[in-house]
Amino acid sequence: MIKEVSIRKYSSQEASDTVDWVAEERPLTIVLNGVEIVTLLCSPSHLDELAVGFVLGEGLVRRGEELEIKLDEERGIAAISTGAANLVNLQAWGKRYITSGCGKGTSFYQLNDIRQQESVSILMKVKMKEILSSMTMLQKHSHVFLKTGGVHSAALQIPDHFIFREDVGRHNAVDKLFGYYTLHKLNAPEKILYLSGRISSEIIVKARRMGVPVIVSRSAPTSLAVQLAEEAGITLVGFTRGSKANVYTHFTRIE
Amino acid sequence: MIKEVSIRKYSSQEASDTVDWVAEERPLTIVLNGVEIVTLLCSPSHLDELAVGFVLGEGLVRRGEELEIKLDEERGIAAISTGAANLVNLQAWGKRYITSGCGKGTSFYQLNDIRQQESVSILMKVKMKEILSSMTMLQKHSHVFLKTGGVHSAALQIPDHFIFREDVGRHNAVDKLFGYYTLHKLNAPEKILYLSGRISSEIIVKARRMGVPVIVSRSAPTSLAVQLAEEAGITLVGFTRGSKANVYTHFTRIE
Repeated sequence: MIKEVSIRKYSSQEASDTVDWVAEERPLTIVLNGVEIVTLLCSPSHLDELAVGFVLGEGLVRRGEELEIKLDEERGIAAISTGAANLVNLQAWGKRYITSGCGKGTSFYQLNDIRQQESVSILMKVKMKEILSSMTMLQKHSHVFLKTGGVHSAALQIPDHFIFREDVGRHNAVDKLFGYYTLHKLNAPEKILYLSGRISSEIIVKARRMGVPVIVSRSAPTSLAVQLAEEAGITLVGFTRGSKANVYTHFTRIE
Repeated sequence: MIKEVSIRKYSSQEASDTVDWVAEERPLTIVLNGVEIVTLLCSPSHLDELAVGFVLGEGLVRRGEELEIKLDEERGIAAISTGAANLVNLQAWGKRYITSGCGKGTSFYQLNDIRQQESVSILMKVKMKEILSSMTMLQKHSHVFLKTGGVHSAALQIPDHFIFREDVGRHNAVDKLFGYYTLHKLNAPEKILYLSGRISSEIIVKARRMGVPVIVSRSAPTSLAVQLAEEAGITLVGFTRGSKANVYTHFTRIE
């Protein structure tokens, strides 16, 4: 996930030639039942998780337990197959995708679709102290970030698991976590999703599909993210740094 | 571009209820010659620039001087019209878009397309001292960031202009700058693009289309960004902070 490059380093007007490390970025094409649906730019690790998490998080397939995946790492192709009844209308998805400058193809119509889905109603409780220490753990785990500064990190906390992923794409890191969760056939309603990056509306759409009750970020949420989290029954925690954090929605899950 | 929200603030285990500000995020649908092509999630300012910059940066239209735009801010729709000869094959674009976790629909095939285009061969020179002070200016200008932490900023420097934009989307801020450049019929080969956020391959693809010889970021580039900048003849400067910076490609433009 790291590549060496030759650079010219400037420091107080002095230049020196040296080597440095950058985060690797590569394309991965996802094919769903023979149809090429998207090419993602991503960090080349856990690509099976990324493909599975993407089709689930974008709402392209209904149930994760009915997926088969074949990964060709060299050519950068992940082929997923599933029963026709498990698919949404792919043509409609392709036509009307939405994207932010930092987004990935979540349909605006899906925003409306998702508002009609069940909200996340799990009555879990989590201590602020635990949130703060898990966020510290996320930062300590961020090896590729520490070496390159070029990736986002995310972690999924469920009982007995703290699963950690890094990716050049903020949403990819989240997709990989849900791919892991699905491929390992885990079932834990009490999920906490930790993120290094900002929370846009698209992260909330994905988290709602996956039934995540608590999202914690080191960074800022947008207005639409706060609004969708409020509607979805998701507790949104931002600016989690040191001993401080802001809770934006559904305060009652935090102790 | 800013919205007030009610939050619960935690600091050293103490909770207090207060208000805070978040960056506004809203959808903008772009219609090109009557065809709905994309809905972006963005900061609601300079939407005409965003729409024009998007269709140019993504290579959906060939020449910016032949565009007409009608903006319906309330409904969030930007309708662009242009002569048929100025369009690329829209259907092909819609089918095979690429996206990163932090990307926006640049086709992977376009990556190959763009490699066949002319590279950026302008022989401009820029002093490292100037780069460092412009980056400091970018940060000082970042009012929405300073209040919300939720946006990226970008600036375009050309003779007699330092144009500054903020957006919840990293790519949107760049699109707005090129929309501005196009709508104001500017023509300056010696462009420098400043960014607060990371440089992924998609930023390089857009910059190459716009003929930007120098890109400067406060953050890290990815491996593919470095590779494409090298091929495109673009000087890439990253980690520009205080008196330090790393130059990754085409060092000779930096003095």
